[in-house]
Amino acid sequence: MTNTAQQNDLANAIRSLSMDAVEKANSGHPGLPMGCADIATVLFTKVMKFDPANPHWADRDRFILSAGHGSMLLYSSLYLLGYEDMTIDQVKNFRQIGSKTAGHPEFGHATGIETTTGPLGQGLANSVGFAVAEAKLAAEFGADIVDHHTYVLAGDGCLMEGISQEAISLAGHLKLNKLIVIWDNNNITIDGKVSNADSTDQIARFKAVGWNTIEIDGHDQDAIEKALNDAKASTDKPTLIAAKTTIGFGAPKKAGTEKVHGAPLGGEELAGAKAALGITYPAFEIPSAILDTWRAAGTRSQNLRGEWEARLQANGKKDEFTRRMSGKLPADFTQAMNDYKRKLAEDKPKVASRKASQMALEVINKALPETLAGSADLTHSNLTNTPETLPFQADNRLGRYMMYGIREHEMGAAMNGVALHGGLIPYGGTFMVFTDYARPAIRLSALMEQRVIYVMTHDSIGLGEDGPTHQPVEHLTALRAIPNLLVFRPADAMETAECWELAMQAQHPAILALSRQNLPAVRTEFSDENKSAKGAYTLLGPADADAVIFATGSEVAIAVEAQKQLSAQGISARVVSVPSMELFAKQSDSYRAEVLGSAKARVAVEAGIEMSWNKLLGDRGRFVGMHSFGASGPIDALYEHFGITPKAVVEAVTAQL
Amino acid sequence: MTNTAQQNDLANAIRSLSMDAVEKANSGHPGLPMGCADIATVLFTKVMKFDPANPHWADRDRFILSAGHGSMLLYSSLYLLGYEDMTIDQVKNFRQIGSKTAGHPEFGHATGIETTTGPLGQGLANSVGFAVAEAKLAAEFGADIVDHHTYVLAGDGCLMEGISQEAISLAGHLKLNKLIVIWDNNNITIDGKVSNADSTDQIARFKAVGWNTIEIDGHDQDAIEKALNDAKASTDKPTLIAAKTTIGFGAPKKAGTEKVHGAPLGGEELAGAKAALGITYPAFEIPSAILDTWRAAGTRSQNLRGEWEARLQANGKKDEFTRRMSGKLPADFTQAMNDYKRKLAEDKPKVASRKASQMALEVINKALPETLAGSADLTHSNLTNTPETLPFQADNRLGRYMMYGIREHEMGAAMNGVALHGGLIPYGGTFMVFTDYARPAIRLSALMEQRVIYVMTHDSIGLGEDGPTHQPVEHLTALRAIPNLLVFRPADAMETAECWELAMQAQHPAILALSRQNLPAVRTEFSDENKSAKGAYTLLGPADADAVIFATGSEVAIAVEAQKQLSAQGISARVVSVPSMELFAKQSDSYRAEVLGSAKARVAVEAGIEMSWNKLLGDRGRFVGMHSFGASGPIDALYEHFGITPKAVVEAVTAQL
Repeated sequence: MTNTAQQNDLANAIRSLSMDAVEKANSGHPGLPMGCADIATVLFTKVMKFDPANPHWADRDRFILSAGHGSMLLYSSLYLLGYEDMTIDQVKNFRQIGSKTAGHPEFGHATGIETTTGPLGQGLANSVGFAVAEAKLAAEFGADIVDHHTYVLAGDGCLMEGISQEAISLAGHLKLNKLIVIWDNNNITIDGKVSNADSTDQIARFKAVGWNTIEIDGHDQDAIEKALNDAKASTDKPTLIAAKTTIGFGAPKKAGTEKVHGAPLGGEELAGAKAALGITYPAFEIPSAILDTWRAAGTRSQNLRGEWEARLQANGKKDEFTRRMSGKLPADFTQAMNDYKRKLAEDKPKVASRKASQMALEVINKALPETLAGSADLTHSNLTNTPETLPFQADNRLGRYMMYGIREHEMGAAMNGVALHGGLIPYGGTFMVFTDYARPAIRLSALMEQRVIYVMTHDSIGLGEDGPTHQPVEHLTALRAIPNLLVFRPADAMETAECWELAMQAQHPAILALSRQNLPAVRTEFSDENKSAKGAYTLLGPADADAVIFATGSEVAIAVEAQKQLSAQGISARVVSVPSMELFAKQSDSYRAEVLGSAKARVAVEAGIEMSWNKLLGDRGRFVGMHSFGASGPIDALYEHFGITPKAVVEAVTAQL
Repeated sequence: MTNTAQQNDLANAIRSLSMDAVEKANSGHPGLPMGCADIATVLFTKVMKFDPANPHWADRDRFILSAGHGSMLLYSSLYLLGYEDMTIDQVKNFRQIGSKTAGHPEFGHATGIETTTGPLGQGLANSVGFAVAEAKLAAEFGADIVDHHTYVLAGDGCLMEGISQEAISLAGHLKLNKLIVIWDNNNITIDGKVSNADSTDQIARFKAVGWNTIEIDGHDQDAIEKALNDAKASTDKPTLIAAKTTIGFGAPKKAGTEKVHGAPLGGEELAGAKAALGITYPAFEIPSAILDTWRAAGTRSQNLRGEWEARLQANGKKDEFTRRMSGKLPADFTQAMNDYKRKLAEDKPKVASRKASQMALEVINKALPETLAGSADLTHSNLTNTPETLPFQADNRLGRYMMYGIREHEMGAAMNGVALHGGLIPYGGTFMVFTDYARPAIRLSALMEQRVIYVMTHDSIGLGEDGPTHQPVEHLTALRAIPNLLVFRPADAMETAECWELAMQAQHPAILALSRQNLPAVRTEFSDENKSAKGAYTLLGPADADAVIFATGSEVAIAVEAQKQLSAQGISARVVSVPSMELFAKQSDSYRAEVLGSAKARVAVEAGIEMSWNKLLGDRGRFVGMHSFGASGPIDALYEHFGITPKAVVEAVTAQL
């Protein structure tokens, strides 16, 4: 089959804008937009449900360009469909500072960009979270309010990244039938033919993890439409549509080669491509007949949206649904947390902060039906479960617990998708050391400023015998280095409650670094002030003390013991707990000066490396912590072996006085 | 079929030692050693080729316990086989500080531990590197010198991690027929049944990436032996042996459940297991009949080894093979590098440091036949290729270039395997921002102190239009945070040559952070001293300057320009280039003091975040660099936008004076 003239015109409008924008920017990736223009045309003009005039419509279908380098495919389409903020000037300003049309799609820059993509595999991995959120919210609120699909366009790169296996095996297991992935099967990567580096039978691979598969010619719009409709009919499996395409379709010399992937075509090749495609109009000037057809397609779902609005207005759960999708917490949340903190002040529990986290979650999960819990197969170590959290499975869409399996990276990426979809607040656990496995997803949580909460237990050598492969040493510093990320390391149950409250209230992702070992209560008075909110505060000791000792998490108790020992020697010391360096950095100069003080001796103690402390310690400060990888042994022996003890803190103080 | 009494006795010796060691340590993982004892027994007593008396024999088969938590399986076997350093006291000291028997197998602790495992999937991913090294060295030196297999024991966790897909798809593509993976198919993970989180048809999955597959009962030793021999007969495919096992085999109540995975059995269950298994001897006391049989099996390959020695002695390539396996560089390497540096001093090329890296590699790859180059599908961006580097493929085992595909994580892990195997020095490229994707492997390079070189180009916002997803900001700090890792950021072609020389000479892994953009030559005089070896040095300016400006990589030229502008204002400044903070930290106090100096103004400029500079800057220093994620735009506009300019450096200096 071949496309009609009109079908070609619509697709060529994408190709034309994409070629021209890349050429004007003298930078970018024309190959994918040219190769996938037919797919995008069918998706956006015939299959998908959305409304450019109401781009945040909760029940819209989502489109995720996992192969984010092909951003002009998306920008061209959004312009053609009539998204108001995607003007032709934005298209012309492709890849310029301040434009909405960044090199890769950046969430928040323009409506219609559902997630930030570019690091390969991430969009595909996000999409599982989108589909989970849809399935869960549909179960909670009913299919008349929530009933949409998640479409992904993924390239060979996405499928070669390891995270893709985590994503597709989880999606297959969960039977996420409303997830539809179109694979831009062009057999080209940057270094040449896919067959240089990979011989995977992708169809067999997807079947092996429970997917429905369809193979088509990605330039046959009727075949594309049929495949998408067949995919939508799947009731128990996600679908892979393997669409055979030609990268740089239309380029006379470069089509079908890596040369068209990531560089402008160049004047001659561009002219040749336009001639071959029958594009006769000037750069950036789409003829009105074509533009009108696109714009009309953009209004296609307005009736559906209107009917949906009416159904929502009539629905008894309307207010709750609206609140949930807005991301606002219920008004009584703070009260619930304060009641819990009051109880903690009475009980003074000596528990591991991972256990304190579970205790806080028992309050949170009761107060907030929107939490979506989970763990990467370490539930009883991370203590991320509560009585509310029955598993989310194919046969229980009301479940609130994601059994992510041993897929830390997908957990992070799926949580990004859940958060971006809206209506749910995801948190998920693994060991702190495995933040390394999830790091690319954590970075995207931070870049997109999504409320995703990483519950990272076993946060130091304090985990003991599992040894250096499992002991975080550099991780607190490495995570504090990521912009927009809140890294919390609470000292006891009270601080853990406060940090959880802050994580829930934040417009950023958060890491909760939690101990395996028990920690004594160091905060035993109730206050309705969230002391952790300032990032650091004086826990005990006089303002004019001879020494100030900074500590976080499990080392706060060491600082408190050192303070006692110093006091016995006639040296006064102040202990400052630092649950979050990021929040402390945001405080006023006067507050910071007050907390830092002017004591002669300044010591920080943390069972990690020094690097993130140097700013705070300055020239005179000393650090007690790790200077190497850890070791396998019982916890007490390890702290002694690595010299992270009250005695070491006392010595560091007295050496300065 | 059932095992003979002797077969059972041999396997039960592993079970007994493993149960007892975990019980004594009151910590550890008995489930895997009990479940896989039959597999290990067959592997070590019947199939594998090795010599405990010569544990470093170059042509030994390698065994990799990818499911590293089952470390007692390995320690028990090494003791039973008669490895001298694995005494019964070491077994008794399981998981204690200073023992060779850490919680997870740590490379370097005991002979017979071929790689550090524990972070799931890494061993499997390493194994591909081992098998590549074997195939390549066999092609170079002949099958009479190099002809061995790589055996892997992997669990469900290893197979669920994304890196496993990168590993097996690469291995299948490369037709690494001497790689044999045994999957401990026990259907249990920490959170319960595998079916809670995964429904993958693993056989179909491995077939889809070109593997031979065999399914067996993992407790039938004859079936295990037959499967392993069948696998060895494979000529064009790696083999997966799916071995159905019972986790904690023999434990009366806990066998087949997650309860036996990661905790001691407890007295009653332990006694019950021993009774069920027919183990009547005391803890840690293997009866001599059983021990003798094991020890005899340990000597099984001595003749083979003797014959191999004789062949090696008679081989014309003996000296080169021995040198290569020792890891020593040829004597004339330094000379070659100095000749090249002399040429650079004449040519003063203005090139990107990624290009300078390629120029250095043209010298290195000619001088060192042992380099194994590669890139994760960014060859022409990373410039990791030279005329010598034809691709290593199934039909070209002499190739020196790994087309890793879009598999950054596997690239790192495979390079670890190549380095551990010996005989080759691996280096591989991707974009600096994707160190995040490879981070768990980079950490293991560092923990194992392996000479693995990461060529990380596009190292800052200087990459321009690709935008924040591709622009490293926090990465230099996050990498500097990892112990044992050398992070180099050279300023020009001369420093790039020096850093490459240092990386080749190092006993640690190295990151080379390289620019996309051209950089002027700042080092234009020849010196046979490797100035970068001290980590930081005065590039220009008087010792008693008013100000000192520290910079790395692409920002050194900015510092030089600032120095010129300051000079025009009558302010003298000294510029210090800091190619490696780690090496600078190792210098004498006097050298450090000399380089730091006592100037009133101290400024550092680097197109990354501040954190890793605070120690050096101290209280008075100022930092010019990044304070957020980057943006999409042309390079000059970005440097201006983020204020990383000579003007900003000048202002930071004058503000302090």
